[in-house]
Amino acid sequence: MKQLGLATEREETWLRQENKEINFSVIGQYVDYLINEQGVKNVFVNGTTGEGMSLSIQERKQLAEEWVAKGKDKLDHVIVHVGALSLPESKELARHAAGIGVDGIAVIAPSFFKSVNKDGLVAFLGEVASQAPGIPFYYYHIPRLTGIKICVEELLDGMMEQIPSFKGVKFSDTDLLDFGRCAKKNDKGQFSLLYGVDEQLLCALAMGATGAVGSTYNYFGKTNHLVLEAFAGADLNSAQKYQFCVQEFLSFVIAQGFGVPQIKVVMSLVSGIPMGPPRLPLSSASEEFVLKVKAKLESLKNCPNSLL
Amino acid sequence: MKQLGLATEREETWLRQENKEINFSVIGQYVDYLINEQGVKNVFVNGTTGEGMSLSIQERKQLAEEWVAKGKDKLDHVIVHVGALSLPESKELARHAAGIGVDGIAVIAPSFFKSVNKDGLVAFLGEVASQAPGIPFYYYHIPRLTGIKICVEELLDGMMEQIPSFKGVKFSDTDLLDFGRCAKKNDKGQFSLLYGVDEQLLCALAMGATGAVGSTYNYFGKTNHLVLEAFAGADLNSAQKYQFCVQEFLSFVIAQGFGVPQIKVVMSLVSGIPMGPPRLPLSSASEEFVLKVKAKLESLKNCPNSLL
Amino acid sequence: MKQLGLATEREETWLRQENKEINFSVIGQYVDYLINEQGVKNVFVNGTTGEGMSLSIQERKQLAEEWVAKGKDKLDHVIVHVGALSLPESKELARHAAGIGVDGIAVIAPSFFKSVNKDGLVAFLGEVASQAPGIPFYYYHIPRLTGIKICVEELLDGMMEQIPSFKGVKFSDTDLLDFGRCAKKNDKGQFSLLYGVDEQLLCALAMGATGAVGSTYNYFGKTNHLVLEAFAGADLNSAQKYQFCVQEFLSFVIAQGFGVPQIKVVMSLVSGIPMGPPRLPLSSASEEFVLKVKAKLESLKNCPNSLL
Amino acid sequence: MKQLGLATEREETWLRQENKEINFSVIGQYVDYLINEQGVKNVFVNGTTGEGMSLSIQERKQLAEEWVAKGKDKLDHVIVHVGALSLPESKELARHAAGIGVDGIAVIAPSFFKSVNKDGLVAFLGEVASQAPGIPFYYYHIPRLTGIKICVEELLDGMMEQIPSFKGVKFSDTDLLDFGRCAKKNDKGQFSLLYGVDEQLLCALAMGATGAVGSTYNYFGKTNHLVLEAFAGADLNSAQKYQFCVQEFLSFVIAQGFGVPQIKVVMSLVSGIPMGPPRLPLSSASEEFVLKVKAKLESLKNCPNSLL
Repeated sequence: MKQLGLATEREETWLRQENKEINFSVIGQYVDYLINEQGVKNVFVNGTTGEGMSLSIQERKQLAEEWVAKGKDKLDHVIVHVGALSLPESKELARHAAGIGVDGIAVIAPSFFKSVNKDGLVAFLGEVASQAPGIPFYYYHIPRLTGIKICVEELLDGMMEQIPSFKGVKFSDTDLLDFGRCAKKNDKGQFSLLYGVDEQLLCALAMGATGAVGSTYNYFGKTNHLVLEAFAGADLNSAQKYQFCVQEFLSFVIAQGFGVPQIKVVMSLVSGIPMGPPRLPLSSASEEFVLKVKAKLESLKNCPNSLL
Repeated sequence: MKQLGLATEREETWLRQENKEINFSVIGQYVDYLINEQGVKNVFVNGTTGEGMSLSIQERKQLAEEWVAKGKDKLDHVIVHVGALSLPESKELARHAAGIGVDGIAVIAPSFFKSVNKDGLVAFLGEVASQAPGIPFYYYHIPRLTGIKICVEELLDGMMEQIPSFKGVKFSDTDLLDFGRCAKKNDKGQFSLLYGVDEQLLCALAMGATGAVGSTYNYFGKTNHLVLEAFAGADLNSAQKYQFCVQEFLSFVIAQGFGVPQIKVVMSLVSGIPMGPPRLPLSSASEEFVLKVKAKLESLKNCPNSLL
Repeated sequence: MKQLGLATEREETWLRQENKEINFSVIGQYVDYLINEQGVKNVFVNGTTGEGMSLSIQERKQLAEEWVAKGKDKLDHVIVHVGALSLPESKELARHAAGIGVDGIAVIAPSFFKSVNKDGLVAFLGEVASQAPGIPFYYYHIPRLTGIKICVEELLDGMMEQIPSFKGVKFSDTDLLDFGRCAKKNDKGQFSLLYGVDEQLLCALAMGATGAVGSTYNYFGKTNHLVLEAFAGADLNSAQKYQFCVQEFLSFVIAQGFGVPQIKVVMSLVSGIPMGPPRLPLSSASEEFVLKVKAKLESLKNCPNSLL
Repeated sequence: MKQLGLATEREETWLRQENKEINFSVIGQYVDYLINEQGVKNVFVNGTTGEGMSLSIQERKQLAEEWVAKGKDKLDHVIVHVGALSLPESKELARHAAGIGVDGIAVIAPSFFKSVNKDGLVAFLGEVASQAPGIPFYYYHIPRLTGIKICVEELLDGMMEQIPSFKGVKFSDTDLLDFGRCAKKNDKGQFSLLYGVDEQLLCALAMGATGAVGSTYNYFGKTNHLVLEAFAGADLNSAQKYQFCVQEFLSFVIAQGFGVPQIKVVMSLVSGIPMGPPRLPLSSASEEFVLKVKAKLESLKNCPNSLL
């Protein structure tokens, strides 16, 4: 199996009908779109963009099954997020994921009751990972959403001994001191350092990122591949040019208020696949947002190689 | 049924054995302790102190059943928290609670994906409440844990129309402007305003609180009853004296780091009922904390009417 | 000299003309207004509402002199804020204040470089207080503006030994646990506990406040006197009624964005004395705000005894 | 005059004797040290590391004069921070700086009363800059200390029209989306983008930084020059190696609590020039810190080319 390059965090199977149930029927189409239109062959299922935490355990299992089935022989990696507030439920999801043959599992730090130090968090992660011992395990670090700010560098100390299946980190934070400290620990390329703050991917690459996972790669996959290529070829001017293009879009939408409901709108507009509304407690994006983002996307067609 | 006065937020059935399962066997003893030793006849099950969000859906149902069974003909109110990150699971819990005959249900705002305005949050609450139409419904406001800071006063506008079973708010925040605005809206005593920041209960009473729900009432129930009585009798000096006693203890433990694991220690020490360790991702309180809190409790025996 | 009851934090001499200089000429009129229309006989000069930190050292001295002169034989207390980021400048202001015969001096914790523990802060306060040894000294606690969250209770330990002229605290924070701990320490009425979060004054009274200092007392002085009187007479229902009236106004303006520029508008409207614009970096309140607040003030004339 | 490359934010003339006054006598020695031992020929006087905001206006003037005098014909740039909470004092400092022939002036956003939008802040900056019309003007962006989070990109719109002497930004924040947006606006190299979060300088270089100003360059100047050189030569592996070395030190001291008092200790140890204690409200670093940091510096002598 290939090394993980660019992965989309957005499984976007949350395509709901009137009855507000998941619309499983479009996942196949989505897989083809990612591969053919965005050049993305890795997916991260049941994560934040996919509203994994808003689904029931049963729904999360079905969704994972569907992505594995539809991605077979097409996708390189299907990584399934199995984190939950409740340890027994997280373990159940891990066992299920292992049983259906995913390529990796990931866990977000539980965010309601918060670990105040490393011990409780690593013990939690270890118990979940132990349910899927042969499956590569990723820690999903996203302090802005979880409030858990324990340095990843600190977590990495002894991580491989405590969690033999540990394979890497999805690092969704702007603390590049912590990130650099992790990169230094990765001198032999023992694990993956997947960066998740899409608007500053280039910075993380300079500091040693080995890949990227984020919602932006659903619709800016090609532009980001150009960032990666330019960086790999030491052509920093081009890398900046492409990164600035992504930034122009993201700074625009962030100023409007950019959350999961708004990401669904963007993705529906760009891909043509209807992504449906978010589930409560989230509300749909406003009509005003839809109009503004349409105009912005149109204007970005002049962006270098935007390929929107 | 009597009006809700002082309620304990701590169902504390989370008494786990070596196998880390819930120890249901001590709940009966706990009910008797609360009534006889603390004068508390209202319980709030599966809330924060009870680690409800760390339990599986199945465990939460069992726990609610057990409290209803053991509290029958003894407790005045058994209120069950049925909030969850996932709407279908929260609805399932509400239906279950209604089926077993609880006296009320409560819902914390979902905290992973956060409502950015009133609409999504009230719609979420309404969908859950609609599954238990005959059961008094409480909104549990605790922004420190959820990050949801939408003013309760704003939520109350139209609340009774949207949620006919709406009965009140557990208000666990220090924003007494918002609280006072709610109290003003409650001029006919239409609903309950239950305050949940135990260290400043007296302030909330002055502003119009109709009751209190908090973890402190597991072990300081009697002292707090004295606060209520003194306040009701317009004896503010005495009310302050008792409140200061509670504050002395809480400021001490807060300085040590006071979370669910530490509350379990205090409650075990005071009640003699072993509360067990917390569930991961939380870690047990340190031995040092146990020793310090023992000494502090000992010293507080001189506190006026502490009745520890 | 009388005990400090209600004091206005707003010296409002910041009445600037086109040339953006302080308009000293209206201070006499302001003094009369406070006494006659609001029943307030204590002022707090060069504090936050008065934009003391935006003035030069020279301007602060002139302003203090003017208030002392115009308040002579009319006001009970003229307390001058002498805090500054720079210790030598703060000391210079303290010496000046002592020289012109103020009734008290106050110091806000320096907020650019922040004390990380009690020692540095108390040493700073002590050096300033030592320049005016015969003048009552107040610590002005306002963590929302300064970022200094060191508990006042902790500061009070040994305070009177280190600062013999220590007389009290202006406590502008919602942490009523800390406030209650201070009130307990004040069992012999050794010092003043002046509360500064006007929207919840009633709560602080219940916890042991001995007075209040805030910007609201410039224009809601009479209503707040009614809160104090009702509370002193153990008539809590009336106290709530008046407090709710203040809250209705404050919650309205806070929702619009309520800072120093907006306070100036309110005060100009209510008193008829032109307060002028704020100094940069603050910008004047919008015309929209002026219109909205006018309408709100009009509507509040029906408020019980608002006396606006 | 040469383009600004690496500048030290730490004028470190705050070398105080027993009498707690500034020790001007060592500034000449300090200049020589920076040039000869660290290869740094640009200094930023009266900034955060130099405790500018804790000095009186008079002291700030003297200090600026001394650096200009001692740096003459030796340093490339002497930039003086002239920001203050009070606009008239900030203007006075700007006039003074222009009069003594500094190479640039810089202003931090006033942080006590906070601009809530761009207008007030830019107007403040413009009034100060207008007092020194021929002197390059820098905005010093450091939201962690000021609480002013207005995007620099937004400030840049129209900046050159409003402030003709505008020359650049000292950007001390981790928001690299904002930084990248500024870099895109700098496509013709119209201004300087000086990065100020030393632990992630390499990231900012990748995004378009044109230089760096930070306290670390007092003692890690040579190592950072190696980062710059390696980056300029597209040798990313080496750039990372040197950056990781800086990170190892900074992550260590940050974990101990790293503020101005601790920086003084490090600088005294590395340079051999006694930097004296900080001024109140700051307290001196603990003896424990001194011992720990000594050991850490010793261990880093093995760091690639650390040249400590």
